[in-house]
Amino acid sequence: MTVKAYGAHAGDQPLESMDIPRRAAGAHDVQIAIAYCGVCHSDLHQVRGEWAGTVYPCVPGHEIVGTVTAVGAHVTGYQVGDLVGVGCMVDSCKGCEDCEAGLENYCDGMIGTYNSPTPDAPGHTLGGYSEQIVVHERFVLRVRHPREQLAAVAPLLCAGITTYSPLRHWNAGPGKTVGVVGIGGLGHMAIKLARAMGAHVVAFTTSESKRRDAEALGAHEVVVSRDPAAMAAQVKRLDLIVNTVAVPHDLDAYLTLLKRDGTMVLVGAPSSPHPSPQVFNLIMKRRALAGSMIGGIPETQEMLDFCAEHGIVADIEMIRADEINAAYERMLAGDVKYRFVIDSATLAA
Amino acid sequence: MTVKAYGAHAGDQPLESMDIPRRAAGAHDVQIAIAYCGVCHSDLHQVRGEWAGTVYPCVPGHEIVGTVTAVGAHVTGYQVGDLVGVGCMVDSCKGCEDCEAGLENYCDGMIGTYNSPTPDAPGHTLGGYSEQIVVHERFVLRVRHPREQLAAVAPLLCAGITTYSPLRHWNAGPGKTVGVVGIGGLGHMAIKLARAMGAHVVAFTTSESKRRDAEALGAHEVVVSRDPAAMAAQVKRLDLIVNTVAVPHDLDAYLTLLKRDGTMVLVGAPSSPHPSPQVFNLIMKRRALAGSMIGGIPETQEMLDFCAEHGIVADIEMIRADEINAAYERMLAGDVKYRFVIDSATLAA
Ligand SMILES: [Zn+2]
Ligand SMILES: [Zn+2]
Ligand SMILES: [Zn+2]
Ligand SMILES: [Zn+2]
Repeated sequence: MTVKAYGAHAGDQPLESMDIPRRAAGAHDVQIAIAYCGVCHSDLHQVRGEWAGTVYPCVPGHEIVGTVTAVGAHVTGYQVGDLVGVGCMVDSCKGCEDCEAGLENYCDGMIGTYNSPTPDAPGHTLGGYSEQIVVHERFVLRVRHPREQLAAVAPLLCAGITTYSPLRHWNAGPGKTVGVVGIGGLGHMAIKLARAMGAHVVAFTTSESKRRDAEALGAHEVVVSRDPAAMAAQVKRLDLIVNTVAVPHDLDAYLTLLKRDGTMVLVGAPSSPHPSPQVFNLIMKRRALAGSMIGGIPETQEMLDFCAEHGIVADIEMIRADEINAAYERMLAGDVKYRFVIDSATLAA
Repeated sequence: MTVKAYGAHAGDQPLESMDIPRRAAGAHDVQIAIAYCGVCHSDLHQVRGEWAGTVYPCVPGHEIVGTVTAVGAHVTGYQVGDLVGVGCMVDSCKGCEDCEAGLENYCDGMIGTYNSPTPDAPGHTLGGYSEQIVVHERFVLRVRHPREQLAAVAPLLCAGITTYSPLRHWNAGPGKTVGVVGIGGLGHMAIKLARAMGAHVVAFTTSESKRRDAEALGAHEVVVSRDPAAMAAQVKRLDLIVNTVAVPHDLDAYLTLLKRDGTMVLVGAPSSPHPSPQVFNLIMKRRALAGSMIGGIPETQEMLDFCAEHGIVADIEMIRADEINAAYERMLAGDVKYRFVIDSATLAA
């Protein structure tokens, strides 16, 4: 099967319309007509060759929602017509300790939704900026939101789970004070999710202009990180910080805000390292600096169900496929509230 | 009361014999005749003014063991003749969340055994390089080891608890693989303790010459960190690393050895920061880089009892008080297996 997609033939070329192959659905596969696909910063870095190892043609996209159009003979969990999602992974070894634990995201054999090796033509996975995708049922998620929210559900598959997983793992909830650093695609989800989990949410932003927005997203408090007095008032106050900022910055400014036994979780990796944090700030209160990468499949389903139950979706701006290159420029400028989503119907235009 | 001590009048002067005052035992105080005091790297840094805020005269020493010589009217836990220890703290606020949790070491009002403010003359605490000390009973520990082991018990009060606390907090025990980086005063205790807790212990050293010693201390495996093949064989293998090295070094070389959800705990703070660790190594396997500082009083008693039960003491080299300046030079050269201990009887010489 050949389908329409949007991708690039080289790192220095814009994304353009292209035809890509999709395999026929195997016994355990689910074939999905993609309705919408969110636009993640990873898409941009990968397709532009800013990360090592991009193979071309590159079709990004790992915030996929759509409708099941066919299922393999052994598929038990899904049937034609189901609303489903696919996130950052389409396969894993399915046999290691991580996979056994439902943490396929940490499997050494994890296959990303794009740019990972696959026996399918052209030899590497092609992502969600496309009309269709075929995925092993283990990596398909059920969407229980109302169909009219489908576009805004798409970003939950990466931005949502990437923040939900550390919030759950480090026990965000009632009685806990949770900081969220950065109010973008990831941060705006972290605020909504932490709030819905019952935590007291403190949002950190470099810009006073984002105060209203952060409050509207659910932050109980908003701190402008350039304001020393406001930062000082948060010292030793936070149980957990989800730091979504992927450009190098002063980690100590936030580590000192943690209580004893508090953890700051980094969910974005900057292209050059952060300034080295002071060991003293870790030792002083038994603090930890940790990392977290997306989430496992069972947890992703749990997140989607949690969001459906709490009426949570992403704040999105819908674009046509041919607007993607301009959208990347706006993303780099921070000019989006908070996630672009491609209307897959425009791929055929 | 005036007692003999060893200390310095300035950061650039050697330690010398001096007379210092000790308060009379108050209602909650225990007066202790010090038998031995271990020599910690912190002593050297503090007395030489290498850390900010040293006040003089400075009498270091926070690995104190001895015998109770008097108790205040309200003291219930100790009586004259008891074998006791005093570690890095002699007081705290006794009312905060940390103190309530028995984690006085993390109390903002923690009073160190030396160089902390006190109403006693000369206005700051004076440590264990002295004949006597007077301490609130809450900060006195019971020593259950045989009396003939007393000198070798002294280093447990800092080196022991500093490694015991993170081993317990991060659940070292049967089924866990624990790395210990650095085989010095702290590291040699970490190896003994982790082994006694039932963990599989992997010791890391820069020097092949320390292999036999590390094995004798209880390491199941010894890895020379300069050997790339040996390091590669440990990748994703460790649940916990206790990193005792307080000079700047490549943390990534060790972070990559952690399994998913593994933690590397730093127990020493270098005077200049480590090279900044790669965020990617944290994110990839949900790893954490944490710090830990000594341990609380209940946990210190637990550690002493654990050591008494398992026959664990430090490996020591006894010195006279007037050998302390030379001992510092040997410590800096790494020329001690593994802790100097001052025989307090020599203070009066
Ligand atoms: Zn993403
Ligand atoms: Zn696996
Ligand atoms: Zn010490
Ligand atoms: Zn306190």
